[in-house]
Formats: sequence, C-alpha cells, structure tokens
Amino acid sequence: MRNQALTYAQNNHTKALLALQELLRIPSVSALPEHQADMQQAAEWLVDKCTAIGLQNAQILPTGSHPVVYADWLEAGPQAPTLLIYGHYDVQPVDPLDEWETPPFEPTIKGDNLFGRGTSDNKGQFFTHLMAAGAYLQSSGKLPVNIKFMLEGEEELGSPHLGDFVEKHQALLQTDAALISDTPILDPQTPVIVTGVRGLAYFEILMRGSKRDLHSGGYGGVVENPLNAMAALLAALRGPDGRITVPGFYDDVRTLTPTEREALNNGALTAPGVLAESGAPALWGEADYSVAERIGIRPTLDVHGIKGGFIGSGQKTVIPATASAKVSMRLVPHQNPQKIARQFTDYIHHLAPDTMETSVETLSMADSAVVDLSSTAIQAAAQAYKQGFGREPLYVREGGTLPIVAMFGQILHTPVVMMGLGLPDDGLHAPNEKFHLPNFYRGIETAIHYYDIFSQARAK
Amino acid sequence: MRNQALTYAQNNHTKALLALQELLRIPSVSALPEHQADMQQAAEWLVDKCTAIGLQNAQILPTGSHPVVYADWLEAGPQAPTLLIYGHYDVQPVDPLDEWETPPFEPTIKGDNLFGRGTSDNKGQFFTHLMAAGAYLQSSGKLPVNIKFMLEGEEELGSPHLGDFVEKHQALLQTDAALISDTPILDPQTPVIVTGVRGLAYFEILMRGSKRDLHSGGYGGVVENPLNAMAALLAALRGPDGRITVPGFYDDVRTLTPTEREALNNGALTAPGVLAESGAPALWGEADYSVAERIGIRPTLDVHGIKGGFIGSGQKTVIPATASAKVSMRLVPHQNPQKIARQFTDYIHHLAPDTMETSVETLSMADSAVVDLSSTAIQAAAQAYKQGFGREPLYVREGGTLPIVAMFGQILHTPVVMMGLGLPDDGLHAPNEKFHLPNFYRGIETAIHYYDIFSQARAK
Repeated sequence: MRNQALTYAQNNHTKALLALQELLRIPSVSALPEHQADMQQAAEWLVDKCTAIGLQNAQILPTGSHPVVYADWLEAGPQAPTLLIYGHYDVQPVDPLDEWETPPFEPTIKGDNLFGRGTSDNKGQFFTHLMAAGAYLQSSGKLPVNIKFMLEGEEELGSPHLGDFVEKHQALLQTDAALISDTPILDPQTPVIVTGVRGLAYFEILMRGSKRDLHSGGYGGVVENPLNAMAALLAALRGPDGRITVPGFYDDVRTLTPTEREALNNGALTAPGVLAESGAPALWGEADYSVAERIGIRPTLDVHGIKGGFIGSGQKTVIPATASAKVSMRLVPHQNPQKIARQFTDYIHHLAPDTMETSVETLSMADSAVVDLSSTAIQAAAQAYKQGFGREPLYVREGGTLPIVAMFGQILHTPVVMMGLGLPDDGLHAPNEKFHLPNFYRGIETAIHYYDIFSQARAK
Repeated sequence: MRNQALTYAQNNHTKALLALQELLRIPSVSALPEHQADMQQAAEWLVDKCTAIGLQNAQILPTGSHPVVYADWLEAGPQAPTLLIYGHYDVQPVDPLDEWETPPFEPTIKGDNLFGRGTSDNKGQFFTHLMAAGAYLQSSGKLPVNIKFMLEGEEELGSPHLGDFVEKHQALLQTDAALISDTPILDPQTPVIVTGVRGLAYFEILMRGSKRDLHSGGYGGVVENPLNAMAALLAALRGPDGRITVPGFYDDVRTLTPTEREALNNGALTAPGVLAESGAPALWGEADYSVAERIGIRPTLDVHGIKGGFIGSGQKTVIPATASAKVSMRLVPHQNPQKIARQFTDYIHHLAPDTMETSVETLSMADSAVVDLSSTAIQAAAQAYKQGFGREPLYVREGGTLPIVAMFGQILHTPVVMMGLGLPDDGLHAPNEKFHLPNFYRGIETAIHYYDIFSQARAK
C-alpha cells in the first residue's frame, strides 16, 4: 500500500503543485478585515479539496472568528491508530508590498523555489499531508491509519479561539498523536524534529500626548512628543546586555543542566550560520548564551512596529497626538503568559511619563511547549524522515510559537510531532516568501512513510 | 484711497471667500510626488488671480523644484516705497486622513471657521494681501506703495531652493521691507508681531539590521531588531531633563539677559494656556525655562515618524530588515544648521550599534532669525494692527521656522515684518486645520491699512 502511494505521488508532482498554487492564489490574510471573504473562500476550497482526494466528513467548523476546516478518514480498522494532522490556511499580511519581486498571491516558480505568501508558512507544508493522504486513497482506496485533518485560520493572529475550539471538540479530535508540519529544517537535505516551541505574549502600547496633532515649532519643548516618549519607553524594556527589564520576568525561567545545554548545541544553529543567512552586520543578544540557546531556551522581546506621525517621503514637522507600538515577547517553558502580561502592563504604567495617557492592550498569548522525545510518534518521525530525506533528523528547540502544541498536550493529552519542511531562508512573514519545491515532494513522501511507520509501531 | 479700498473690501467678503475656496480645493501638497500636477495648477491659478485683480507681470518663475509665483504693481510713483509680500501656496500632507471631519480639500464653513488643509497655513493668510491689493486696484486703480508678491511652493519642504532663487532674483525682489503673514496671533482679538523665528535641521536616520525581514521566533534574541535599536538611539538623543545630548549642540546658544527674558515673558504664551489649548496631560521641557522661553529661545528635538515593521491592525511577529526615523531640531540664533548637521550625524554614528548599518540623510536646513523692532516697517505694522484689530499687538518669539526670514535679511538686506493672522488652535500640519473667518476679513483690512501707513512713514 505504501509503495503504491509513493508511486502515485511521484507520478503526480504537477497535479499536486497546481493544486497548491490554486490555494496560494486565495489571499487568506487573517489579520486584515478586508480579507474576510478570502478567508471563507480558502476554507471552502479546502473542504472541496479534502472531499476530492477521498477524505470524508469534510466541513467548516465555526470558531469565535475564522473557522476551522475539518476532514477525516476513519476506516483503517480497529487495530489502526489515529493521527491528527494540524495546519493553518491563514497567512501573514504582505506589506511592504513594494519589496516583493513577484506578486505575493500569484505563486511563481523560479528555479527550485515557489515564491508567494503562504508557500512555506503554512499552505505548502500542510499540503504535503493532503497530497500524501490523497496518494494512499487514490492508489489503494485506503490508508494505514485513521486520519483527521484540522486546518485553522487564526494561527497568524496567535490562535485566539483555538483553545476553546479544541476543548469543545475534544471527542471529535481524539487521537493517538498530533502531527504538525510548520517548522524549519536545517537545509534541503537535513531534516529537523522540533523538540519545543516558545510561548508568546503580544501587546500594543498606546500613548496620547495631546488632543490633536501639534506643530513642532509651536509646541516642541513644551508638550512632550509621543514618539519621543515611546522611544524612551521601548528603549527601557531591555538592558544593554540584552536582558528584558520587566520586573519578575525571569522568575520562572529555569536554568538548564549542562547536559541539556549540550544537547541544544548540536550544530544545527550556529553563529556563523545565522550571520550569513540573515545578512546581519553582527549578531546580538545575551553574551552568556549560545545562538542555539538564545533562540531555543531564552525569552526575547521585539518591537514590531511604531505608529504615529509622518512616514511618507519628504518632511513634516508634526508632534503627533498619539503614538502606538506593537511589542511581543517569546516565552520559554514555565513562564506563564498571563503572569507576564500583568508584569508587562504594570511595568509600562510604571515607566510611562505623566506627560502621556498610556494604555496597554494584550493582543494574544500562547504557552510554550516541550516534546516528549521518547514517544512512539517521535520515533516514527525519525524513521520517516530517514526514508524521505535519506538522512537522520537533528533535534532542535524552535524559537517560534505554535499555540496549538501546548493546547494539544494540555487538552487532548496527545504527543505532538513537529516534522517541518521549511528552510531557514524561506522568508516567513517577509516579502518574497518561498518554499523549496524538492522538499514539497520529499515532504509528501515523508508523510506517506510516516503514516505507515506510525501505524505499524502503534499496532505492535 | 485707503477708505475706498476698505469699503471695497467690506462689500466683497463673499467674493474673497469664494476665491480662497477655489485655491484651497487644489491639493498642492509639495511633499508628495503624486501632487506634482496640483502644484503646477495652484501656481497657474495664482498667476491668473494676480492678473485678474490688477497686478502686473504675473508669472511662474522656476526654481530647482516647485516654482515661485511672482506678480507686482510698480506705479506708485518715485516717492513711494516698495513692499515685498511673501507667502507659500504649498500645504502639508493630510494624513491621518481618517481623522478629518470634513474633506481636507473641500473647504467647509462651520460657524466662524473655514476648515481645510492650507486654510491657515498659508493660503488663507497670504490671500488677505492679494485681496487687499485687489481692493485698492479695483476701487482706485492704484496702490499707495509699489508692491511685489512672491509666493513659493516649497515652504513645507523647508524651502530647499529658495535661497538660490532669492540670490538669482535679487534685483527683481529689491524692496524697502518684506511682509509675511504666516504666524499665529494670540487670540481672535489680540494681534502679534513675531520678533524672531527658530531655525531647523531635519534628518532621516536609516538602520538596516538584516538583508530581509525576519521572523521574531527564529531570530529574536540573536539578530538585533532595527526598531528596538532605533528606539534606543532616539531615546539617547535627549536627557531626562529635556536637554539635547548631541555633543556641542549648545555651544553657540547665547544666554539672554534678564531684561530680554522678561520681555519674552509678556503673558502671550503661558503654561496654563498651552496646557488647555493642547490638551496635554502635563507640560514638558527644560525646568529652568518658562514656556515662552522654551518655545522662543531654546532649541528642541522632535521625532516625527518611525517607519518599519507592521502597523496595521492585528499582529505580525516581524523583525523588519530596516527602520527609519524622521527627526528635526529647532535651532535658535547663532546656532549654525550646517554645524548642527555635522554634530548630529557624527553623534548618530557614535551611538549606532555594530548590529546595524546606519546612515543619516539631511532633509533640510534653515537659519533662525530675529527682527529689528526699531524699523519703520515694524512700527507701521503695530499701527496697522491697531487699526485692523482695534488693539495693540504683542511681541512674541515664534517657535516655528520660516527659512525666508533669514534669507531676506541676509540676501536682500531688508527688514522683515511678520504680522500673522492664524490662531494657536488652527491645527497647522494636523487634521481639521481651520482659519478663523473674522480674521480673514480683519486681515484684509489690516493689510489695506499697512500699505498706506508704511507708504506715509517711508515717504516722510
């Protein structure tokens, strides 16, 4: 059965690619209200596609906002385990649009890469599982495992309604393992199993300094400028050593043992590698931690945008009435996002000068998670990667956030496997996002291997 | 002759208002390339209007960018002095557009006010002089003074080509006094003669931290974020006491004598006044200077916009490749903008971290200027204001910048009179800019008085 599926997949590269391109053309940007209809269209397209490849019960399930697409195939028999596959069909906004070399929603092949928003994050990656399941169903009419697909539309918003959704649909989502392809591998030949993800707490800070925009000639020096005040506030959030200054912020961050630190520093993430790949003039961060540790086990704070005043061409001498800033922190295991949100909000109010009316809005929170490496599901992943890529995977603590990992663990009590297909330079969240097409096809084969290997491992 | 002109002006309020509205409908935003054609249209409209009211030699004179509109009437006779009237037909950009209660380029009357971009800064103000000259020419066929109009189109850009223009056209612009209505008065009944303007040095700072936008999960904590770095840089430009930290910045700032300081603190600008008018939660600035001193004789530094990353609704976890900031400093007499530009640029490079490629672009520079209060031209202004407003003017050091004031003094060696008509709450450079219509009509009458009074004073 596995071999038929592999042959089917190999003979249908073009068909898989054309289908993916169709999905990529739908601009399903969850953050922007003007793409509301596109979100719905993407969900409907997926329901149709799931049905077309032979999955059953394909449907749109509502959440508090963008819906979840669900489909399954549960006829593998009483001995067969069940696998829940998660992906997200929403994508990041595309600005700055003028930095795209090809239109973000017109997927374009250049060399080995497919360019477009969502190619890597996450449409291209979860699509490998639809194609793998389809390859089994089209070639043999069945799968070695029971399979459930759960494709959400709010991941790029921090999955605000997904916890409630998983709680509500616990029975429907019951599974022996959850599988997620939404993480990077090291290079086109070297697969990576992610052993943990960071949490996230995302805020917007608003400062108002006057009732209307003011002329800097008439008010400079007497009415404080919210942009200057915001810059001072943001600058105060990190010390010169890169440490975050929010009081109590590190209280729950555990020190890793030398053995744990050694395992992290396995060569997957190195300073020269990150330097070359990012093009940064110099690296940055906490001097007493390696690059792999700074990304994997240390919390961080980033400013994502500062709004207010004039950013067009030329000059305008305005003191804006308001300024706002988007700020997020990546959290590590044992840091509680709710507690961090309280600490952060208190600190902002402590720092804010009396010349500003200051408020803090929490945009999203997500827990960090670590993976149990001894689970059958993870061991099957290592074997599947070896079949698909011809090489043993590396084990890496990922710096990004996948809220669903902690939710699956906490609510469904299931092991979670993160076996991704993206590359470090795919440009997630950036202009000219791309996906390495050879890995698209390797990914489909790896998934085909995984379903069969997992089925046999569990059935033993 | 003066009385006929006054009567004509009083009988033609509606005609003057309709003409002004026509000009205000032309969106002559000098900073934005997409308004290039509108700039030309505004200039052409003014040439036609100058000719229609009886001025002569109306023409468009090229500069390095947006042109100057020139017109004159030089038949007042050999005894009569000459007056050069300056205004600017370009306006500020209108963003944030969604904060306008009426369309910025559809001038709208509400109560005593005319709302729209450019109503106060500067179309409505310089238009009083066109209407005053027209009132003389339409009612008596002549003026008591020779008059020259010079209306520029780059004031909101910092008048980058105006110095060259005035140098080149020295003979054409030769005059006994220059008159500018582009400054605020205290309140609708209390006129103000401005005794000095601050200079300006306007910069854009660019930081690049990586070759492309990065995901904060994958790179936070190892590649520095240009927005965090920019915030730290901007925060370092001012000390907690409000003083600017650029080394050498205060070297040329002179200490005023107690008598000079006393003259500044004449009640025109007070802390309670600025607090109420701005709606600020608290005032800000150098503690050892009064509000009038901070605006009039102290240099300041303001951030006008910070670009980079994501400022849409929702969240995006991006580390942008670049961040830029617009920063300007208001300068006081004896501070040299070129010297300040060097000091500022050096300091930015000194502060910039090695994690960023940092550059500084100078967008514009303008000299400060002080006015000789003993000149006949200024004394005539006080008398004209008294006739037009029924009240003696106050004398105020203005915090804003009018590059032309220093240029006229340095190149044409002429006294400059700043007799404005704007109000402190006109919302210059802000949404819902407005002009107080009773002052539009009072302004026309004040100008009619001025031309006659100045003519007699000089003819003595």
